[in-house]
Amino acid sequence: MQYMRSTMMQTPLLISRILQHGATVHGDSEVVTWAGADGRHTSYAEVGRQAARLAHALHDDLGVTGDERVGTLMWNNAEHLIAYLAVPSMGAVLHTLNLRLFPEQLIYIANHAEDRVVIVDSTLIPLLAGVLPHLTTIRHIVVVGDGDASKLSKDGVEVHRWDALLDGKPDTYDWPAVDEHDAAALCYTSGTTGNPKGVAYSHRSIYLHSMEVCMAESFGLGPKVRDLCIVPMFHAMAWGLPYAAMMSGASLIMPDRFLQAAPLAQMIATEKPTFAGAVPTIFTDLLAYLDANPTDTSSLKEVVIGGSACPPALMHAYSERHGIEVIHAWGMTEMSPLGSVAREPSGVDGAEAWAYRYTQGRLPAGVEGRIVGPTGEVMPNDGTAVGELQVRGPWITAQYIGEDGPDPDKFEDGWLRTGDVGTLSPNGYLTLTDRAKDVIKSGGEWISSVDLENALMAHPAVLEACVVGVPDDKWGERPLATIVLREGASADAGTLRDFLADKVARWQLPERWSFIEAVPKTSVGKFDKKRVRADYADGGLEVVQING
Amino acid sequence: MQYMRSTMMQTPLLISRILQHGATVHGDSEVVTWAGADGRHTSYAEVGRQAARLAHALHDDLGVTGDERVGTLMWNNAEHLIAYLAVPSMGAVLHTLNLRLFPEQLIYIANHAEDRVVIVDSTLIPLLAGVLPHLTTIRHIVVVGDGDASKLSKDGVEVHRWDALLDGKPDTYDWPAVDEHDAAALCYTSGTTGNPKGVAYSHRSIYLHSMEVCMAESFGLGPKVRDLCIVPMFHAMAWGLPYAAMMSGASLIMPDRFLQAAPLAQMIATEKPTFAGAVPTIFTDLLAYLDANPTDTSSLKEVVIGGSACPPALMHAYSERHGIEVIHAWGMTEMSPLGSVAREPSGVDGAEAWAYRYTQGRLPAGVEGRIVGPTGEVMPNDGTAVGELQVRGPWITAQYIGEDGPDPDKFEDGWLRTGDVGTLSPNGYLTLTDRAKDVIKSGGEWISSVDLENALMAHPAVLEACVVGVPDDKWGERPLATIVLREGASADAGTLRDFLADKVARWQLPERWSFIEAVPKTSVGKFDKKRVRADYADGGLEVVQING
Ligand SMILES: Nc1ncnc2c1ncn2[C@@H]1O[C@H](COP(=O)(O)OP(=O)(O)OP(=O)(O)O)[C@@H](O)[C@H]1O
Ligand SMILES: Nc1ncnc2c1ncn2[C@@H]1O[C@H](COP(=O)(O)OP(=O)(O)OP(=O)(O)O)[C@@H](O)[C@H]1O
Ligand SMILES: [Mg+2]
Ligand SMILES: [Mg+2]
Repeated sequence: MQYMRSTMMQTPLLISRILQHGATVHGDSEVVTWAGADGRHTSYAEVGRQAARLAHALHDDLGVTGDERVGTLMWNNAEHLIAYLAVPSMGAVLHTLNLRLFPEQLIYIANHAEDRVVIVDSTLIPLLAGVLPHLTTIRHIVVVGDGDASKLSKDGVEVHRWDALLDGKPDTYDWPAVDEHDAAALCYTSGTTGNPKGVAYSHRSIYLHSMEVCMAESFGLGPKVRDLCIVPMFHAMAWGLPYAAMMSGASLIMPDRFLQAAPLAQMIATEKPTFAGAVPTIFTDLLAYLDANPTDTSSLKEVVIGGSACPPALMHAYSERHGIEVIHAWGMTEMSPLGSVAREPSGVDGAEAWAYRYTQGRLPAGVEGRIVGPTGEVMPNDGTAVGELQVRGPWITAQYIGEDGPDPDKFEDGWLRTGDVGTLSPNGYLTLTDRAKDVIKSGGEWISSVDLENALMAHPAVLEACVVGVPDDKWGERPLATIVLREGASADAGTLRDFLADKVARWQLPERWSFIEAVPKTSVGKFDKKRVRADYADGGLEVVQING
Repeated sequence: MQYMRSTMMQTPLLISRILQHGATVHGDSEVVTWAGADGRHTSYAEVGRQAARLAHALHDDLGVTGDERVGTLMWNNAEHLIAYLAVPSMGAVLHTLNLRLFPEQLIYIANHAEDRVVIVDSTLIPLLAGVLPHLTTIRHIVVVGDGDASKLSKDGVEVHRWDALLDGKPDTYDWPAVDEHDAAALCYTSGTTGNPKGVAYSHRSIYLHSMEVCMAESFGLGPKVRDLCIVPMFHAMAWGLPYAAMMSGASLIMPDRFLQAAPLAQMIATEKPTFAGAVPTIFTDLLAYLDANPTDTSSLKEVVIGGSACPPALMHAYSERHGIEVIHAWGMTEMSPLGSVAREPSGVDGAEAWAYRYTQGRLPAGVEGRIVGPTGEVMPNDGTAVGELQVRGPWITAQYIGEDGPDPDKFEDGWLRTGDVGTLSPNGYLTLTDRAKDVIKSGGEWISSVDLENALMAHPAVLEACVVGVPDDKWGERPLATIVLREGASADAGTLRDFLADKVARWQLPERWSFIEAVPKTSVGKFDKKRVRADYADGGLEVVQING
């Protein structure tokens, strides 16, 4: 017998398969787009037909024939889902443009990716019009909705209307058999320093990641799930939820541009999601709203919070006051983005289970992790050794787009350097103490800004607490606690410092306190610590000093 | 910008990753091997160490260096799990030998696969000794357990003891980076006609299939699941449950050779599985036992029944009398084996939900199906058009081992011809009426033997009913109903025929009835219809004739 190869079909893992499966087997599942007062319902069967029409339009009318990039400047809505499916399935590359980036960054990424087409929600025409003069590769703009598009005129750029373009196109498409390693979609990280960096997901990585999202220990998506997809589709592929939903038949409830707590609460009461996902700040606002405005949230069993550390107090508040279980998760744009999900292991309950649920979560088989110390040594996964987390696996990027190879600052020996600092336990749970760049280095010791924040956010008067390191003559760096109080609540620095006293080591207690209106946020709703540090440096913060 | 490739890591999908993940992150999960009175517990961390030792022993002592085949002649137990993981991870190929095959078939498959090593449970030494003189490629036998091995002597064959071989070997192994498309494991179908035919699963197909098994809509394996793995590891990879368990941290309860209802009930009461899977006959026996012998089955929430059509009456009996939900599933050795799982869609309940649960199940994204009519035309998925089911996907075989290419009787244009006849509904549910070779052709019309069986098995006096087509002068073929009555129950042919009268069309009612002690079973516990037809032809059945 000759060398033994498998007899299995070498079926490539393609987004067109996810599309075809979702549009047929799960044709009755639906995407609901919130329209302000109620939801617009579209079945997955219809999504499939529209995706075919869009692909025909892009190919036949706009000349998209190869791996050209098709950008989207869109909220979470049915048309964005259709673009998510159609563009990669036809062999082109989807580029989700983060509409909250600074204009320079938006211009940079659209030019860097050489986007040839942009699909834009008509509510975002002003934004696109503002950057359009600087976009050098755009030839076509497709406007969804019927707002005034006259501001979008530019030589060499044709403006189309989505409805007109799709009208009369065939509702099937002969999706090509692309290579599973080909690029399917691009996403750029927000670029807290320097220019944003992009990654190119493959059909394979998206397919595998979608399966992961549907695994029971991960998000467990399936036909009975109704996912309120708050996390934006322009950021880290909305955590892969749109693709996983089409793969598994979960229905999607899309908030479009209605991301404030009041409309989110109304969506929950009306559209009855069973599941939702977003960053902590969204759920902090929503909690305050739900506490003040009784809302029927009985359908909602589980919400995933990730993107930043989820304060334990927030988890308890949802569980105890609203019967909603918060599942903490960690990921990165560079990881498609799912890294870990914090479900407690078998055989534990009570406080022990909560301790596991506070962590960033457990790594799945598809994500291999290791902790690396400051001098490059691999440290034990003993739950104690602190270092930088490195990861590798089939849905993790090996480099950034357009770079010659892996940048050694970001990659090492085939591993991605996450820039996140923490521990790995023997049973695979990740606990992050900080981002490497946010760790507070006080007299040779490290203080975890996340620990201080979590402790502070457990105080009933505190809505948000953001802790950053600021220069200190004696210790090098010391923590500055910036505090947003809840509406109507009051607490002074001394009270909060006393509250912390039995929760963190004495030498970690902040001396500098600042009460602010709101924590500045990044383009994806995370605490913008760079801004906070800059505000402090510029003297823009009123600081109370307490010494212990 | 040049042609856009993805930036993702091209991490191969390997069994060594499943092993390493299970042995570390899920090191506290366990495999329990039933030993007659109680269970022997081994942690996944220990499984990982033993797998490394086994790989060293095979490599260093037995000279397994490439893709040589390592056969297993074993029950479901911890050592079999260790072989499942170690052999493919080291780059060799696992071949699970079906210990219930006829000796000629066993000899045929071991020689056809060119097995070089066989690992054998000491309780199976007599079986191996019987065929050993005819096994032409075996050089090493590894005996697990301490039975007398003196019968295994043969020139050119060395006999080793598992414990001695593994003793002192390192408990880590530098698993090679094999190609994900390489063969990982072989399985031969039982070969109802002619010689058995083998398929070679790849690392990739097993990895993807394992993810599928963990998806919520499939079997939903995860760390809190305790799987009573009744379905034999020598048949269709035990439905992929061992690999999926290591991937997800589900614990495994292995019955070893104790497959009768009484010990299975004891395992349930003692080891508290939450989940189990087996063919209908096993669950039919177990039901009779549980009805007669009150047993604590409270841990068991869900059991999957597949491999043959599951009678609806069996599903209701478990649900109503024991609070255990039966999930019907369909698959084939050629499909790794998972094809479809019958969970009802969203938004239905009561009788409508049950109707979905009676079907063979819903196809997942990884299994594409179509119905093909007798003249080769593709028929609509309308739930009505009956034809042969064809499937394709990344864990489905493209041909049989050792054949030059796909046999046109079994494969067509990249699709596997399943030999199963039925319908596909628009929302992806498969309903099988029969195997092509079991369909009863009566005067130009088809009668489904499965429908008749299901209707008969709903009668309280009937334990098992097996219906086959037999020659008939007037109609070409007519159904023969062979009936096994429950202990102590009585019913005659007239009663049963009357019972059927309002359940199937009048012209389908069988005229020929035979009351038998037991339905003959195949090597994997399915009704052996070939045997039943042969028994009838030979005059070996006592037949009552009733005309309507
Ligand atoms: N559950 C979590 N707990 C703590 N930090 C988290 C969590 N989830 C995500 N993060 C942080 O978010 C990072 C990934 O975020 P993302 O890819 O969305 O962009 P970003 O890193 O915030 O932006 P940029 O890379 O442009 O600076 C992680 O590296 C980690 O620092
Ligand atoms: N839920 C089910 N309902 C009806 N039939 C089923 C079901 N599950 C499996 N089968 C039957 O079992 C077949 C696959 O079985 P398997 O691969 O275990 O070996 P086999 O086909 O029985 O044996 P051989 O191929 O050697 O004849 C399917 O093709 C189908 O006919
Ligand atoms: Mg980042
Ligand atoms: Mg078969």
